[in-house]
Amino acid sequence: MILINGQPDNRIPVSDRGLQYGDGVFETLAFRDGELELLDAHLARLMLGCERLGIAFHEADKLRLELATLCAQTAEDSVIKIILTRGAGGRGYKAPAEPETLRILSSHSMPDYPDNCLSGIHVRQCQQRLGLNPALAGIKHLNRLEQVLARSEWDDDSIREGLMLDINDRLVEGTMSNLFLVRDGALLTPPISDAGIAGVMRAKVMELAREQHIPVFETVLTLAELASAEEVFVTNSIIQIWPVILNTSSGQSWPFGPVTHQLQSALQAMRL
Amino acid sequence: MILINGQPDNRIPVSDRGLQYGDGVFETLAFRDGELELLDAHLARLMLGCERLGIAFHEADKLRLELATLCAQTAEDSVIKIILTRGAGGRGYKAPAEPETLRILSSHSMPDYPDNCLSGIHVRQCQQRLGLNPALAGIKHLNRLEQVLARSEWDDDSIREGLMLDINDRLVEGTMSNLFLVRDGALLTPPISDAGIAGVMRAKVMELAREQHIPVFETVLTLAELASAEEVFVTNSIIQIWPVILNTSSGQSWPFGPVTHQLQSALQAMRL
Repeated sequence: MILINGQPDNRIPVSDRGLQYGDGVFETLAFRDGELELLDAHLARLMLGCERLGIAFHEADKLRLELATLCAQTAEDSVIKIILTRGAGGRGYKAPAEPETLRILSSHSMPDYPDNCLSGIHVRQCQQRLGLNPALAGIKHLNRLEQVLARSEWDDDSIREGLMLDINDRLVEGTMSNLFLVRDGALLTPPISDAGIAGVMRAKVMELAREQHIPVFETVLTLAELASAEEVFVTNSIIQIWPVILNTSSGQSWPFGPVTHQLQSALQAMRL
Repeated sequence: MILINGQPDNRIPVSDRGLQYGDGVFETLAFRDGELELLDAHLARLMLGCERLGIAFHEADKLRLELATLCAQTAEDSVIKIILTRGAGGRGYKAPAEPETLRILSSHSMPDYPDNCLSGIHVRQCQQRLGLNPALAGIKHLNRLEQVLARSEWDDDSIREGLMLDINDRLVEGTMSNLFLVRDGALLTPPISDAGIAGVMRAKVMELAREQHIPVFETVLTLAELASAEEVFVTNSIIQIWPVILNTSSGQSWPFGPVTHQLQSALQAMRL
């Protein structure tokens, strides 16, 4: 089901700036056991994205009502996607003075990942690099060609994720997930300041770790730190925490270790 | 008028990857005096973009026919825009095995730039920087948030263009144009290797300059070179060549000098 500005529909105008320039933001939420998980955090990031892009979005209340409408018609656990664009028109890149933002809500079946992903996945290193742009880093905007190109590098379903470096050889994230390493019992994750998306689940996991008295550091990571990590895992709102047990590009393996296990169990025990 | 895959229409499916990820390319051509100017060069860049993004596009002949249909119904000089997306669907960033590319052709009235733009324009320096990504540099893809943000920095119509630096302080281009400096009678323009769009008009002007025995160098340029330039101009397929006579950010001015004049006259005398 798709709601566009609250109405059932499945098409948008060609003139919409979401298509023309990728001029908008999106969120991908899990609807599980009748709940939109981490809804407030997702909406907060959506608003941050609008603020960073200068999109005047005043319909948060409408959006919440429309999400409720969508979920009321969604029987099973689903993925809910929100797209918000600046709307139609303008002269070239210049937006109209008062554009009407477009709200697109859609529900999708949960991806059919095998259960054993929760015990450990295989990943690869992508050739495609992430460019650097502090102004766009962190937010979940619609300019996602780097991820598309990275994800096009492999077709083997036994590889569940690809790790991405920026153009300065720093590890940033997976194509659809954030990255964590465990070293000396502490959690390390790359800062999302020049590239990457600051995941809602990333923030939740960092919060959870601190509650569990696991030290957390946002710090520059390279392949050297990956090689010396004791445990590795990736996160997003749909998969939650997937331990990484093999890098098919380097052949290196890691165990599904105690810190990852502790965080995964704590997360699964929570009502998000 | 809009043609979508050859049919008159003005809406596209929400599931199209052009909207979802900016997964596509575009071209903006001038239709002047009954001619689609520099059509072959535009189509060549479109194909290069498809190749770089891994979009299998085999409908170039159809596209040419559809352009002819569109132009046959276009009485006045117009801007013709081609958007080509990878098509609909896929699982997240991963594209379907055989996606159906979407062709969107549209005609628009020529922007009403005053004639005196041809004698010189005012520009400003944008705060928004261009990120670096060699894999995406050069092609005219649909991920254009940097240009949107740069263009949103000013509202004063007397400023016709904004100059953009990359995150390493190198001059790259204007928000909608390429940049040329004249020094010691030679033409200098930034290489488009890490950021920016390699404009069709940029290539035409470089070719024309060489024919006129004006030396041309693609070379790294900074604000220092801008400050010491004898002449400055910007180019694109719609405006052709606009001399830059004032940088409102620095207060510096340049004359509408002889090299710019020579190239502009030569271009205007050509049938493109």
